[in-house]
Amino acid sequence: MKRAAIIGVTGAVGQEFVVALNKHPWFEVKQIAASERSAKKKFVDAIRDPNSGILKWHLREPIPEYARDMIVESVDDIKTDNLDLIFSSVESEAAREIETRFAKDVPVISTSSAYRYDEDVPILIPGINDDHVMLLDTQRKNRTWKGFIAPLPNCTTTGLAITMKPLLDKFGAQKIIMTSMQSMSGAGRSPGVSALDITDNIIPYIPKEDEKVRIETGKILGKLVDGKIDPAKLKVSCTCTRVPVIDGHTETVFVETAVHTDPESVKKAMQEFSNKVSVTGLPSAPKEYLLVHDDPTRPQPRLDREINDGMTTVVGRIRDDTVFDNGIKYVLFSHNEKMGSAKGAVLLAEMLYKKGYI
Amino acid sequence: MKRAAIIGVTGAVGQEFVVALNKHPWFEVKQIAASERSAKKKFVDAIRDPNSGILKWHLREPIPEYARDMIVESVDDIKTDNLDLIFSSVESEAAREIETRFAKDVPVISTSSAYRYDEDVPILIPGINDDHVMLLDTQRKNRTWKGFIAPLPNCTTTGLAITMKPLLDKFGAQKIIMTSMQSMSGAGRSPGVSALDITDNIIPYIPKEDEKVRIETGKILGKLVDGKIDPAKLKVSCTCTRVPVIDGHTETVFVETAVHTDPESVKKAMQEFSNKVSVTGLPSAPKEYLLVHDDPTRPQPRLDREINDGMTTVVGRIRDDTVFDNGIKYVLFSHNEKMGSAKGAVLLAEMLYKKGYI
Amino acid sequence: MKRAAIIGVTGAVGQEFVVALNKHPWFEVKQIAASERSAKKKFVDAIRDPNSGILKWHLREPIPEYARDMIVESVDDIKTDNLDLIFSSVESEAAREIETRFAKDVPVISTSSAYRYDEDVPILIPGINDDHVMLLDTQRKNRTWKGFIAPLPNCTTTGLAITMKPLLDKFGAQKIIMTSMQSMSGAGRSPGVSALDITDNIIPYIPKEDEKVRIETGKILGKLVDGKIDPAKLKVSCTCTRVPVIDGHTETVFVETAVHTDPESVKKAMQEFSNKVSVTGLPSAPKEYLLVHDDPTRPQPRLDREINDGMTTVVGRIRDDTVFDNGIKYVLFSHNEKMGSAKGAVLLAEMLYKKGYI
Amino acid sequence: MKRAAIIGVTGAVGQEFVVALNKHPWFEVKQIAASERSAKKKFVDAIRDPNSGILKWHLREPIPEYARDMIVESVDDIKTDNLDLIFSSVESEAAREIETRFAKDVPVISTSSAYRYDEDVPILIPGINDDHVMLLDTQRKNRTWKGFIAPLPNCTTTGLAITMKPLLDKFGAQKIIMTSMQSMSGAGRSPGVSALDITDNIIPYIPKEDEKVRIETGKILGKLVDGKIDPAKLKVSCTCTRVPVIDGHTETVFVETAVHTDPESVKKAMQEFSNKVSVTGLPSAPKEYLLVHDDPTRPQPRLDREINDGMTTVVGRIRDDTVFDNGIKYVLFSHNEKMGSAKGAVLLAEMLYKKGYI
Repeated sequence: MKRAAIIGVTGAVGQEFVVALNKHPWFEVKQIAASERSAKKKFVDAIRDPNSGILKWHLREPIPEYARDMIVESVDDIKTDNLDLIFSSVESEAAREIETRFAKDVPVISTSSAYRYDEDVPILIPGINDDHVMLLDTQRKNRTWKGFIAPLPNCTTTGLAITMKPLLDKFGAQKIIMTSMQSMSGAGRSPGVSALDITDNIIPYIPKEDEKVRIETGKILGKLVDGKIDPAKLKVSCTCTRVPVIDGHTETVFVETAVHTDPESVKKAMQEFSNKVSVTGLPSAPKEYLLVHDDPTRPQPRLDREINDGMTTVVGRIRDDTVFDNGIKYVLFSHNEKMGSAKGAVLLAEMLYKKGYI
Repeated sequence: MKRAAIIGVTGAVGQEFVVALNKHPWFEVKQIAASERSAKKKFVDAIRDPNSGILKWHLREPIPEYARDMIVESVDDIKTDNLDLIFSSVESEAAREIETRFAKDVPVISTSSAYRYDEDVPILIPGINDDHVMLLDTQRKNRTWKGFIAPLPNCTTTGLAITMKPLLDKFGAQKIIMTSMQSMSGAGRSPGVSALDITDNIIPYIPKEDEKVRIETGKILGKLVDGKIDPAKLKVSCTCTRVPVIDGHTETVFVETAVHTDPESVKKAMQEFSNKVSVTGLPSAPKEYLLVHDDPTRPQPRLDREINDGMTTVVGRIRDDTVFDNGIKYVLFSHNEKMGSAKGAVLLAEMLYKKGYI
Repeated sequence: MKRAAIIGVTGAVGQEFVVALNKHPWFEVKQIAASERSAKKKFVDAIRDPNSGILKWHLREPIPEYARDMIVESVDDIKTDNLDLIFSSVESEAAREIETRFAKDVPVISTSSAYRYDEDVPILIPGINDDHVMLLDTQRKNRTWKGFIAPLPNCTTTGLAITMKPLLDKFGAQKIIMTSMQSMSGAGRSPGVSALDITDNIIPYIPKEDEKVRIETGKILGKLVDGKIDPAKLKVSCTCTRVPVIDGHTETVFVETAVHTDPESVKKAMQEFSNKVSVTGLPSAPKEYLLVHDDPTRPQPRLDREINDGMTTVVGRIRDDTVFDNGIKYVLFSHNEKMGSAKGAVLLAEMLYKKGYI
Repeated sequence: MKRAAIIGVTGAVGQEFVVALNKHPWFEVKQIAASERSAKKKFVDAIRDPNSGILKWHLREPIPEYARDMIVESVDDIKTDNLDLIFSSVESEAAREIETRFAKDVPVISTSSAYRYDEDVPILIPGINDDHVMLLDTQRKNRTWKGFIAPLPNCTTTGLAITMKPLLDKFGAQKIIMTSMQSMSGAGRSPGVSALDITDNIIPYIPKEDEKVRIETGKILGKLVDGKIDPAKLKVSCTCTRVPVIDGHTETVFVETAVHTDPESVKKAMQEFSNKVSVTGLPSAPKEYLLVHDDPTRPQPRLDREINDGMTTVVGRIRDDTVFDNGIKYVLFSHNEKMGSAKGAVLLAEMLYKKGYI
């Protein structure tokens, strides 16, 4: 068993880590950490709001037994001596400093954006750009670290990159226009979205989100050339919004491909990609990596977040687009707290373990 | 005072007509009608659900006094002898037959789609394509009607066409990619969207809606050439979705213009258009026809539906687009039950009255 | 295997039956039926809304394979020859006629109210009033039926009766004042609660509900005396409301007991009752029949509906009441579509099977 | 014009004060104050969330012009020299210290609970216990203050006390059992209820709320005897819950009266009380102080919060209760941010002004 720690354990993503690592066959949680405020408390006490008395646990699964009474450490007290890897979901500006400190000793799988845009840091989606893993060697060398930092993309990028990969491979995607309708859990839990802001409402703006998606999509779908990532020649434009949905991001996508295609071929490309995806068989990998609905009323967050515990990217409404020269449009659904963050990070760790990086 | 009837008075749009015509300076409601099931009942009784006992009145305004105890007629019993105009919000397949019958005698302002796509029928948005009104003369002549049918567009088209008009005039819009996040009231009231379908959810599909918006936008923004409408040379592609919002449609728009422009110029073009719009001064016209926010978190349905009683089209997040050659993107909000249907229809009637058509 | 049919299969409760009987060890669904409108369609087609195209399936579980393509019969075409029992969730006024017809031949487990108030018909909650089952013999004899009708209570009564049973047994409950906050799924699916009625709202009235709870609670908790049910000497008063919650009813309860008690003793009484409840071991019985939280912020519908697949009645906030002489108050949660209807009906069938009635 | 300051102006209640005092005929806002963090900012900047960029203004009314660019002072910088009264909605534990400081010089109308339970401090609801105002003289004398502190009750108490007053006067109310379904705006704005906590959910617990309602109801409905308040001989028990409603508290009430009564008499008593209520004619007083619906589906928050700008307490479902000896039950609605706090506080100030206390 590899010995793991969860950093930022009291937050939204941290809690998902707690669940995603419950009874994991390869990784065992040995330490959990959060900010000074939570330190020395039992996990179950650390996540209770002191004013309202409400347990800030919003996952459907109950708190796993192993974590319930585990003592939350201050991040500063985490010892890397007896750790094989760290899952980090630190969201504050402190992320860069904290992750740097740990990466000197041990691999860090991160959901934060702190390191995503560094040249020797790949943004990894297991199954999509596994070859970028090689950049971790460069990173180690450059920085003379024993560990490394392997970040996931922003949760809004995940579904877009996953669905675009087969289109890019097969039809040469060139332009993407995307509108996201993002769930409230994507905004964290402390305090998270206020009910007064979002009930019966839409917030058409999420700070920095449009840019993150644009840059990350190109990097993830890029090629490794001479040890560096050459971003995909993709123009991406998006508008990211927040809607009154608890879990799971919905995105409408309009794509221009290099060669002409049609909805049936796109569906087939996605299904074939899904059938042959590299991660099949890993403990956290879903039965279907990509699922395409014919029912035009799908994907729907309430129904599609249930599929394969949120690890499947779901697509529907594939149609010809009437604006682009070779245009295709579709709607996708991706679970922002499962494949899009914590459980996706565990899947990444599984892939890195198999490849000998952990 | 012109004497008016409301057809389809018990439905969502019909109820908005009841409010929009309350104490109107020019139009007085003389008759109200609905299906056989509601006939001979007082209005207040006709809109009560017989099973749950719930009054199906969802407007913030109380039921106006004049309508409360008015007897709902069967549509077949409406007499046009003492009517000067009819507001119709019939939604069933019966709309075409019913509106035809009335238009033989009297002008019909309609929110239904029954006649929208006929060649001699303009789709009118007061302030946007007032010159298309001339087509009503052709229509009368063609069909030897004393009245005419003047339909409004689909409520999702309204905001798009209004915001595109200044861009088309000034920068020559060529391509539009739009995603709508439509409110629940747009789906009517009998039974309307089920709470179990939409709570904590998104339905990414509204039957026929994508096509309606595509075709109507071109027609509305088209030119009258030799007595016929030549649709605007605009490529439009959209994905229409339903979200858990009570009133008001939000749309993300990505536009390619013929000449290069920038966000500041787009804002200016919209504001100048708004300042000079033709409908200013009509009883139902808003103080601002178009309103542009600098605040990137706007428009928001809960806040922006309040502005000028839902008659203002609200724009925000105007930015450069990174996909189109001359690209601009923005978010718009349009109240589907006010400017987008009943009160917009009353505004149209006011314009037609001023022009002598009623 | 006993051969079962589900009547009213397209409705909310009918769908829950489909799930509750999936891979059941004792009962196998041989026929499914609904109204004429759905007849001769595959189940998956029969539950799709023809206007919106939306699949009216709101359960988290996907449609079980066995039911997906099963042909829905018209109720009139159901043959009882090769059936051992019928699960009925017919909600219309037709329920009495339909259930009567079937009960002549075969046992009918019903969630409808049609027969609940007949003298020779027990209202059964497995684990609470199992001895009332004897009334089924009387019923058979009275009516010369081969089968019988065994109705469950209204879903709002279920949680109240279950939590009151240990209090009545131990402390002699005499008065109950209850306020319910009922979920939207309790109002069915055709059309069910309109989103425009309930979003950001409360409907403080559910037709006939207050009375149903009052009468049923007394009958369920009553004693069998000389082959008849002598209702419990309990005064019950309630106000039933509908709130914007998807699944699960929450109820605040204020009780006057005959002898003085205290919160700790009440908790203990409930737990002891739960530990010894008769249904333990049946396939659909939950691990905990009654669960008492110390956390004052529980029960919460979003969290507590997950416990034991909705078969556990959850209690919290047990406190001294300051109005009644011997007063206790608490909050309960009961899943209206699981223990409160379909899956509770399956549990009842299991009990009746064990007792030899099926 | 009396010169007023608003303390705690950036919070939920503070913002309502800003609106309630807009263009007030008697009071003019001269200073606004909040915590150090907001000090020296324009009001419009002080209420913008620094992380999300969202303007934390949730009122339907736009920000009044007079307040938009007004500079927020630190509470410590408020000068009482040129003030005639202070509206305070400080919610922190600092309230007692802050209000004390100001009351030495100038009258303080407060929505906080800091002083509510002091013996020489009345809890005032204008129209209900105006005679308790005399206690302010005692308070001044006791404490040698030039000003005084006049607190409103908790917003959940307000509707209960208002509806009970006519019952107490006419039928001698003795016992009350109440369940509240409280809106999210009652929990403030910084951060307020998290959407992840309350969407599709109920929180059955609000810290200290049950006790506040119990004690305050007795004090408000008590009699002034020998210069002291003798609490009403009323037993009160309640369970307070939070539900997914934006504005307005709904409460189910079960009452035992001293003499027998019936729903029609209760309705009449409430209406007569309303017609003769003392506050009629004050600028913020509603046209109807109490409104009784016959429609059993009312009150509903979405509809009834609109009545008279939230200043009317709305009652429905008056029925005989079946538990108490002389029992009556009903449902009430009270707007927690209007009559229940800021605008109710302004109404109180108006009453005190008329009586010469300000």
